Amino acid sequence: MSRAEFSYDFPHRHLLSVADLNPVDIQIIFERAAHHLATNRTPDKRSDVLRGLTVLNLFFEASTRTQGSFEMAGKRLGADVVNFAVAHSSASKGESLSDTARTLAAMKPDIMVVRHSATGAPQFLADHTGLAVVNAGDGMHEHPTQALLDSFTLSQHWGSVGGRRILIVGDILHSRVARSNIGLLNILGAEIRLCAPPTLLPSDVDQWGCDVFHDLDEALKGCDAVMALRQQRERMSGGFVPSEREFFHLFGLTHERLEVASPDVLVMHPGPMNRGVEIHTKLADDPERSVILEQVESGVAVRMAILELIGANIRKEASA
Amino acid sequence: MSRAEFSYDFPHRHLLSVADLNPVDIQIIFERAAHHLATNRTPDKRSDVLRGLTVLNLFFEASTRTQGSFEMAGKRLGADVVNFAVAHSSASKGESLSDTARTLAAMKPDIMVVRHSATGAPQFLADHTGLAVVNAGDGMHEHPTQALLDSFTLSQHWGSVGGRRILIVGDILHSRVARSNIGLLNILGAEIRLCAPPTLLPSDVDQWGCDVFHDLDEALKGCDAVMALRQQRERMSGGFVPSEREFFHLFGLTHERLEVASPDVLVMHPGPMNRGVEIHTKLADDPERSVILEQVESGVAVRMAILELIGANIRKEASA
Amino acid sequence: MSRAEFSYDFPHRHLLSVADLNPVDIQIIFERAAHHLATNRTPDKRSDVLRGLTVLNLFFEASTRTQGSFEMAGKRLGADVVNFAVAHSSASKGESLSDTARTLAAMKPDIMVVRHSATGAPQFLADHTGLAVVNAGDGMHEHPTQALLDSFTLSQHWGSVGGRRILIVGDILHSRVARSNIGLLNILGAEIRLCAPPTLLPSDVDQWGCDVFHDLDEALKGCDAVMALRQQRERMSGGFVPSEREFFHLFGLTHERLEVASPDVLVMHPGPMNRGVEIHTKLADDPERSVILEQVESGVAVRMAILELIGANIRKEASA
Repeated sequence: MSRAEFSYDFPHRHLLSVADLNPVDIQIIFERAAHHLATNRTPDKRSDVLRGLTVLNLFFEASTRTQGSFEMAGKRLGADVVNFAVAHSSASKGESLSDTARTLAAMKPDIMVVRHSATGAPQFLADHTGLAVVNAGDGMHEHPTQALLDSFTLSQHWGSVGGRRILIVGDILHSRVARSNIGLLNILGAEIRLCAPPTLLPSDVDQWGCDVFHDLDEALKGCDAVMALRQQRERMSGGFVPSEREFFHLFGLTHERLEVASPDVLVMHPGPMNRGVEIHTKLADDPERSVILEQVESGVAVRMAILELIGANIRKEASA
Repeated sequence: MSRAEFSYDFPHRHLLSVADLNPVDIQIIFERAAHHLATNRTPDKRSDVLRGLTVLNLFFEASTRTQGSFEMAGKRLGADVVNFAVAHSSASKGESLSDTARTLAAMKPDIMVVRHSATGAPQFLADHTGLAVVNAGDGMHEHPTQALLDSFTLSQHWGSVGGRRILIVGDILHSRVARSNIGLLNILGAEIRLCAPPTLLPSDVDQWGCDVFHDLDEALKGCDAVMALRQQRERMSGGFVPSEREFFHLFGLTHERLEVASPDVLVMHPGPMNRGVEIHTKLADDPERSVILEQVESGVAVRMAILELIGANIRKEASA
Repeated sequence: MSRAEFSYDFPHRHLLSVADLNPVDIQIIFERAAHHLATNRTPDKRSDVLRGLTVLNLFFEASTRTQGSFEMAGKRLGADVVNFAVAHSSASKGESLSDTARTLAAMKPDIMVVRHSATGAPQFLADHTGLAVVNAGDGMHEHPTQALLDSFTLSQHWGSVGGRRILIVGDILHSRVARSNIGLLNILGAEIRLCAPPTLLPSDVDQWGCDVFHDLDEALKGCDAVMALRQQRERMSGGFVPSEREFFHLFGLTHERLEVASPDVLVMHPGPMNRGVEIHTKLADDPERSVILEQVESGVAVRMAILELIGANIRKEASA
């Protein structure tokens, strides 16, 4: 695509939270993602759309797959991509988040992709660096590109997610994936169900606009899609933690359990999944049900869409 | 080179084992490697042959030099290269090799370069991901690009390795370099000698089609080239392990010992070498004998040839 | 810029020490850096000036920010950039610096950017590899690109640093930044002051051509710029080490203390800085005084200038 043809009205400098998006924004993202999904399947997946821009991958929490997904997205669009794993960095010489970020911003990257263990870190960096910031996951708060790739994957099957019944099951309390998905699915008009033991649900879940279940068989009735989340044991402190065996017995997805769901029900997992814990291994590999690998593929395409749309705005600003 | 001119018939989707190659395949690889060897010596070493393709460097065992060699090879051909060091990855969250690989494959790289400590891992990934796979070393099994760069280095001196007498000395038992070299040298019609203490030879060495020696002075007689291997102490479990001093006394290469070899004998080592253990430091640095740095240089050129030939096949498949 | 237009006479194959540069060389570097400073602020910061060349970032000491700065510099000029962090490398299999370097040189990078804990390592590699070498910091010896970016930052404010009074305060004994800055500022005709406790000054400081102070308030009088250095506790062995509180009391920069300096005094720090130790946090963030983030920005621009000028010489050599 030549730069001149590219004229979407995507009025966002950052992607910090799904709450900033409206249905038209999401439609634009999905349209561009569908284009990249197709080209990524060919040996001509490289364009020069972001040539001249630098994308900084700033990961304060290690994540090979998300970082790799953003790295491929940036490179395939012709950006210069530079990875910073901050565990190995100046932080160890006593530098604050703000100083680290402003230092990196002074090197004049154009887009900063940030993952951080603290809620609000991407917003903080957007406020203090002047750069365009993409949230790649902050604490237990948001993971907006994950939610976008999840809904994009479903929309590839259904056309639209509006009116569909979608269940999220597992460790919802600690999950930024759940929070972003709930926000986005609400915007898109889906019916959202949550299923977890009370210890893995937040105390204010009543106000999230979802139907809450503790029994998986009840929760699955009539669902069009179900998204399994892993237990984030590293974030759990005190309280009852089900064993893997208990978890699978109570909340693990199986073909048998899915019999009460829609006959075309789709099964999702943000990965990495634990076979035999959140999901039976046969279900994970069932090409009729599981869209888990499609989610990963969609991830690169959706991230390309985000980087491309934000990059186009950066060019517009610069030429204004 | 423009893409249209490139019309070798290299009938391989993967490079998993030297056993898959015939003499014509090897000739094609060497021809392209010679071209890249020349351009790599200039400041115009970059082409766009692989533009549009993504090469994934997937290293489950750390290896700065092999990974760097593949990274340079891919970048100089215009590919987008993404490195994954899997020690830092989702494997720590309990993901299997198969799930890690299929997840990465879903990001739609075109070629996956794999190093793994387990025999057969690259074959497994070729079978399960649908991607083109290049084996960059699997356990004690194969390291085909190392064997190709070794024979390519010799062929640059001799024209052909057919009919030449080549000795491999050292820890043959644990060496994938030895296994791949023996396979390739057999295809190319060389006479192969092995020299090691019985404890560092495999039990079925009689069936390898090589002449086996335990005495280095006997083994070296009339050799055209000798390849020294380091002791892979990290793979040894129990049994007699020679000390470094004993090893050098019995199997270390020196100018004196080479007097019984061909007067033009060439000395090789896959690196990293231990001076004073496998080889005397003066011999390692003798420009008349040692081709150790030429091997490294050939490595990038041979890997460019492999990536280029496989990449051309990927384009053909896609346009078919 | 097209390659043909580029015709500076920069008679250097390496950048090892500021002592190799004369005022005309420095002027050329600053002229090119000013160009890159401007383009780096736009979304069209990418050129093809170094297309066809490989830049190897060889860091034996970890440094996220300096490595990232060189990485961005190389990529924005179109070079293929390959990072080698040598802590994870063949060094652990017993390879010497010389063998590691000659091995990497055999892969035919064109420019090797080197950081090492030992004085003279970059010179050693320049002598033994045949490659163009840029010193990115060697032990307590030199850090020439840091000195160049510091003077470049000042020259952006003043036009020239000649005749200006510049104070360096802090741990001068262990600082390669101080050594390179003193060398460069002497060439450019600045008046240099040093201020530190006797335990943090070298024994031969009398011969450095600087005015030496132990009292900060005396040292600051009439200064046009002051550069704060952090205590390199990791390099200190025995002897009196001031606590952070003592250090700030004696040598920490504050607005109050700067009242005796020039009314337009500029404050610098090579980073990462410790707020409340070397510098009061309000002063670090004062846009009228602090040029600390400008230094970082200048760093990428100056490194682009160095890589570009050395790259042009490599092309000339190759076509000669």
